[in-house]
This record gives sequence, C-alpha cells and structure tokens, in this order.
Amino acid sequence: MSGAGPEIERLMALLSKLPGLGPRSARRAALALLKRREQLLLPLTAAMQDAAEHVTTCSVCGRLATRDPCATCIDPARDASMICVVEDDGSLWAMERVGAFHGRYHVLGGLLSALEGVRPEDLKLDRLIARVQGGDVREVVMALPATVEGQTTAHYIADRLRGLSNQIEITYLARGVPVGGDLDWLDDNTIAHAFKTRR
Amino acid sequence: MSGAGPEIERLMALLSKLPGLGPRSARRAALALLKRREQLLLPLTAAMQDAAEHVTTCSVCGRLATRDPCATCIDPARDASMICVVEDDGSLWAMERVGAFHGRYHVLGGLLSALEGVRPEDLKLDRLIARVQGGDVREVVMALPATVEGQTTAHYIADRLRGLSNQIEITYLARGVPVGGDLDWLDDNTIAHAFKTRR
Repeated sequence: MSGAGPEIERLMALLSKLPGLGPRSARRAALALLKRREQLLLPLTAAMQDAAEHVTTCSVCGRLATRDPCATCIDPARDASMICVVEDDGSLWAMERVGAFHGRYHVLGGLLSALEGVRPEDLKLDRLIARVQGGDVREVVMALPATVEGQTTAHYIADRLRGLSNQIEITYLARGVPVGGDLDWLDDNTIAHAFKTRR
Repeated sequence: MSGAGPEIERLMALLSKLPGLGPRSARRAALALLKRREQLLLPLTAAMQDAAEHVTTCSVCGRLATRDPCATCIDPARDASMICVVEDDGSLWAMERVGAFHGRYHVLGGLLSALEGVRPEDLKLDRLIARVQGGDVREVVMALPATVEGQTTAHYIADRLRGLSNQIEITYLARGVPVGGDLDWLDDNTIAHAFKTRR
C-alpha cells in the first residue's frame, strides 16, 4: 500500500513485474508516466497495444515478428544455408545489433535444464530438424549462452543434427563469451569477435 | 537499431524513457512483455489505459487522483487544520506509507530552482495561499527534500505564509540520522546537523 489509490497501485504493481524494476523504481516509473501523460503514458500505451495486436511468432524461425514468415526468413539477401540457433529473441537482437551474421535464425525458446525440468520436447527443436532436413542448410551456428544449460543444449542439438546428415557443419561461438555470460548482456565487440572465430 | 522490427523497436525506445531503465534493461523489459503477453503485456496495457482515462489532478491539493476533489481532501477523518506541503506525488505516497500524518496535503509540483529556471509562479503556490487564507489551517508542515532547492522553497513559502497571518504554525521535518542509519554511511552535513540539534 502506498496511499496512491487503486488504479495507480495496480499500475505500480504491474510495472514492478518488469525485469529491472523493483517496488521503488516501479513507483518512480508510475509517477513519470502520470506526470508525462502526453509524452510518455499515451505513446507507450499505444506502442504496447500495437505490439499486443501485431507481434506474433514466426512459424519458421520462432522469432517475434509482425509478419509470418518474418522478414528475415523471406529475405533473399540472407543466406538460407546458414542457421544461427539462439535461446530467445534477446540473443537474436544481440546478434543483429552486431551485424556480423547474414544467415537465418532459429529461436529455441529456452534451454534444456534438468533443474527446471525443461526437456527437448519443450524447445522448438522439431522445426529446426525439419528445416535442416529440408536440405539447403550447410552450417548451423550455435549461439547459445556459455552456461551449463547453454552448452548442454548445444551438444544435444549437435548430436541430433549429426544423426541426420554428416554434410552439415556445426559451429560454436568462440570462447570469447565469458563463462556464465548471457548474450544480451555482452558488449557488441565480444559478440562480433566470438562470431568471427566460431569453430 | 536492434533488428527487432519497428513495432518492438518503438516499444523499447519508449520503455527506455522510464526512470531506472536504460536501453539494455528496456530491451529486457520489452522481451518480458512480449513473452508474457497474457500475464504482463495485456494487464499492464489495460492498467495504463485505465490510468490515462481516470487519473486526474485534484483541484484542491494538486495530487494525482481519480476523483476531484480527491479522497484525502474530502475525508472528514483527516484533520483539515494541518496541511503537509510536498514536492510531488512520490513524496506524498512516502508520507502515506509511513501513516504518521493525518492531515491534508498540498502538492507543489516542483521546487524553486535558479539553475533550472523554476520560479514561484511555476509552482502551485496560489492555491496553497488560498487554502491558508480560507482560515481553517493552523499548521503547515514542510515535507520538502533536504536539498538546496527543497530548503529554498520551504523558506520562500514560509515567508509568504507568515505574511498572511502570524497565527499559522510552520514546521519542518526533523533532520538527522535515519533510523537504522550507520554514521559511517552518512554524509558529513547530516552528521553535523544531527549533532547541533541533539536532544
């Protein structure tokens, strides 16, 4: 309770669920929104409505997009023979910011985890396998976090893909990614370097 | 540019304008919203729309409220002879969380600042003076920040109010060591002030 009235309390409670915002910063965010109604509250509400209405998931690569298939999957300028496997859209955005990769993506939507009970069937793996079986793919780049879960997932996927064909090259981002590091938290140079020295 | 598409880029750009969120945490917030559509994106959008439609400013005290006059200004259980002057709704919410004050409020909407060019006519001072001239007020509590701007504003208001009547008691929040506060973590001015006003 902060004495702000039920509408504002509810706004603060929901804002505090955003990553990076605690109760105190959620209060400051609510206050900023209400004080800057025209410049912030209304445009952000519209952007969120817009996102809720138009953002969907690409049925090919699994990324968030406003078209299905997404712009990346139908872009003829992007190399269809390379697929970069990422955990989520945060990692995909990080790869795109770097601009070093010109192939297509596959978003797993998670990582294998014995602890959290995430099994292979919980990831978008069937679609990746179908894409590779489609025949055009020459290289699959594993751009997964350098964590236990990330590396377990990468090895599991590599095994599955090698079972399909020994024509496919499977590469990994170089160990320039710090152990325990999430792609979204890395500086762009490290990601670019790790991509260039992939093996 | 993060390669996320115009709708998501716009969402991230607006989120990054919230206090406490930089570009990186705005990306994570956007991703959390899009991943948790039903639990977060839709309810937060609805709460923001609700706030934009219903939250207004009380014409008596200046606080954000869904009624005008606000619930505090018409609550007969709250002492109309005491007015607590605060900078903004954030300070008002802090006072309400504490629950020690049972009077009414006056929200200035800012602080005098030579540097930022905030003059007396930029604050909601006329309404405060009108309320005090109304006659019922016995005490005005200055709950303004212990900064140069806060104290300048408090002294300016005190002078104006004393010019109206010498019946009104003007009080200030005590300054000193915060409860649970370690001397080693406090700035020297606070310690010096706390020593001078020891009791």
